[in-house]
Amino acid sequence: MSFLQEVVDILLAYIVESFDRETKVIDFHYPNELMQRNNWELQDEPESLDDILVSCRATLKYAIKTAHPRYFNQLSTGLDMVGLAADWLTSTANTNMFTYEVAPVFVLLEYVTLKKMREIIGWQDGSGDGIFSPGGAISNMYAMLLARFKMFPEVKEKGMSSVPRLAAFTSEHSHFSIKKGAAALGIGTESVICVKGFVPFFVSATAGTTVYGAFDPLIAVSDICKKYNVWFHVDGAWGGSLLMSRRHRWKLDGVDRANSVTWNPHKMMSVPLQCSALLVREEGLMQNCNQMHACYLFQQDKHYDLSYDTGDKALQCGRHVDIFKLWLMWRAKAPASVDIDCVCLCLCSQPQHTNVCFWYLPPGMRHIVDKEEKNKRLHKVAPVIKARMMEYGTTMVSYQPQGDKVNFFRMVISNPAATFEDIDFLIEEIERLGHDL
Amino acid sequence: MSFLQEVVDILLAYIVESFDRETKVIDFHYPNELMQRNNWELQDEPESLDDILVSCRATLKYAIKTAHPRYFNQLSTGLDMVGLAADWLTSTANTNMFTYEVAPVFVLLEYVTLKKMREIIGWQDGSGDGIFSPGGAISNMYAMLLARFKMFPEVKEKGMSSVPRLAAFTSEHSHFSIKKGAAALGIGTESVICVKGFVPFFVSATAGTTVYGAFDPLIAVSDICKKYNVWFHVDGAWGGSLLMSRRHRWKLDGVDRANSVTWNPHKMMSVPLQCSALLVREEGLMQNCNQMHACYLFQQDKHYDLSYDTGDKALQCGRHVDIFKLWLMWRAKAPASVDIDCVCLCLCSQPQHTNVCFWYLPPGMRHIVDKEEKNKRLHKVAPVIKARMMEYGTTMVSYQPQGDKVNFFRMVISNPAATFEDIDFLIEEIERLGHDL
Repeated sequence: MSFLQEVVDILLAYIVESFDRETKVIDFHYPNELMQRNNWELQDEPESLDDILVSCRATLKYAIKTAHPRYFNQLSTGLDMVGLAADWLTSTANTNMFTYEVAPVFVLLEYVTLKKMREIIGWQDGSGDGIFSPGGAISNMYAMLLARFKMFPEVKEKGMSSVPRLAAFTSEHSHFSIKKGAAALGIGTESVICVKGFVPFFVSATAGTTVYGAFDPLIAVSDICKKYNVWFHVDGAWGGSLLMSRRHRWKLDGVDRANSVTWNPHKMMSVPLQCSALLVREEGLMQNCNQMHACYLFQQDKHYDLSYDTGDKALQCGRHVDIFKLWLMWRAKAPASVDIDCVCLCLCSQPQHTNVCFWYLPPGMRHIVDKEEKNKRLHKVAPVIKARMMEYGTTMVSYQPQGDKVNFFRMVISNPAATFEDIDFLIEEIERLGHDL
Repeated sequence: MSFLQEVVDILLAYIVESFDRETKVIDFHYPNELMQRNNWELQDEPESLDDILVSCRATLKYAIKTAHPRYFNQLSTGLDMVGLAADWLTSTANTNMFTYEVAPVFVLLEYVTLKKMREIIGWQDGSGDGIFSPGGAISNMYAMLLARFKMFPEVKEKGMSSVPRLAAFTSEHSHFSIKKGAAALGIGTESVICVKGFVPFFVSATAGTTVYGAFDPLIAVSDICKKYNVWFHVDGAWGGSLLMSRRHRWKLDGVDRANSVTWNPHKMMSVPLQCSALLVREEGLMQNCNQMHACYLFQQDKHYDLSYDTGDKALQCGRHVDIFKLWLMWRAKAPASVDIDCVCLCLCSQPQHTNVCFWYLPPGMRHIVDKEEKNKRLHKVAPVIKARMMEYGTTMVSYQPQGDKVNFFRMVISNPAATFEDIDFLIEEIERLGHDL
């Protein structure tokens, strides 16, 4: 117990440091260098608890401070104290979501929360189904799996040889998990387009694309899906949390027409990683699609209501408890806190969410008239600035190319600790680090 | 910070209680009853931090004490203080495994640990590949996905329509995740057998079955796989940890011939949930099979060695940090601690692992001569005893039927806190609760 308390003291000090703007976001080292800086090897002799504390300190020294107000690098940022407390409690309870028997409270909280999320989506009386999964990619894969099963239930036993070639439709800006899902499920990435002769079975509209934060027009897409009787999925991994916002909810108008919705509270809602939900309109389908009736877990002669044994809906067997942190944060904050201001700084795309995508044009390039020459040089600017930024460790932001656009910065605002000054700081850092390029 | 410390105090008290034999393993209530016993609903108004503490206490009051020395219900039991500390640190660091950029230390530790695990399996110089995944079911699904891709790389783009009908082979006692994987991947559950005309692509041998703890003969299976050039997978989710044991390692002789191995340190090694690894002999295959080159994460013009960006090997996008708890426990304990004594109490099957499967025959049934009548009544004994046991809350053990065997108890010993007295206690409780049946 005193060991645990010592670890907690180390963690509390780390948290204070993480929120301090005087601290670096990252103490960066290249992989080989970091490998040398500490003894990370696994030896045959046990270490003392004092040595273990040294390892904990070393691990945190080189960790990225994802809670830092100047960390803009990913969609998941920030650190919420209630969420953190909930995650510590979850670790301590150390159980598994597959049956009510071993996780009665967590199973009930998942039931209550999924129902509430379905009500917010707009499905009548919150009816339907759903599950928390290990991330948005798996939630999206579940949706595709359900869509295929709904249209061709025989695929479960007979495989893809029993069905015609299928086609899934999604925007070029959608998340790569749609293609990963198609590859894994035996549909093939080439079928994630429109090809004559294939049977369309799945449309994934994106509510908040990863790079630009753009929203597909859900009502228009749903009309087409309805006409052709195709499963309508909304990938709201990033933008789904706007359903909680009075001001921004309209961006998801039509989401209530979806057959399934991915929504990751670990992004905009700052719930600790991981917390992703798939919500499904039709009840019973997940069970029918995925159940294998393992009799050592899902005994039919148990003494309680078996509908609370949710394990057979999942592709996983054991499933981590991801619900408690969301549930406790929801209780502590209530929906109102999700209302966000969108900052407009964008150069590459019109912002619809908190993604702000822009190029930094160093003074030495501003005179270049030849567009091709300019783009070629501009493409190299963001990687150099990012590398310098990580070495200084003062702030972090992401970059990438997209379509015909050369490398640009994507700043994402999801950290409740970030202020306007922190955003100004990022812009000034980019200027400082890229001025000479 | 004082709020976090208050939560920690609640958790420390819960831990002390969990190890106390005077405490009940479970304060059981039926779902509807438990729903009434506390206000679990999500309201529109935020709660105070004091109310949040009340919710934490209520959650723990009704939680199963999985660390209790008399909890024998699942393969994952016990609570290790170093593992718990590591999980608290992981929650606090709150980051994502997909790139070195956002998780430099954790990515290195995963690299070091996977290499060590491959050395223990016996692959030359620990070469090969691997990943930590959300549980053994997903690890097994990865193995099947890789086997298919290895034989037919075109399946990634063209789907199952480009390949012949495939067949996967596994024992009737194997885990249901093999069938779940086949269903999800579009292979179909009917192909998880031997059917003429199908192309065998995957054999999954089980090292430690879920119910009996039995081991398939790996060398014999590997000979057949080699002869027919079929992917040889070892599902060691439960039994893989015996690789760390000098006394029991021989049960996995031949594991070094596998193409892939599932190994869950969250079971026999008591690492907090979840911690499951898939180890792959061939390097590069996971990347080729699963990569989608998302340019917003895996920029090719980054300033560090890109082989440390492991994210594109996974089906997931964001991936939880499951490595630190294993790594820190390994440092604290070293391999020797995994040596286990097998207790022999078994009636249903010859024990090869710590699963002990047995029937309890109440005095009133001992005289029954008619086998069918006896089995019919015996089948109802375990569910009644289990229901009574959960209501008393004194201990917990699992039961199930298997093949032609009616319901029997499966006691599993994976909790380092359990003593011989605790096992005697379980037997006495079964006698006490089932005496009148």
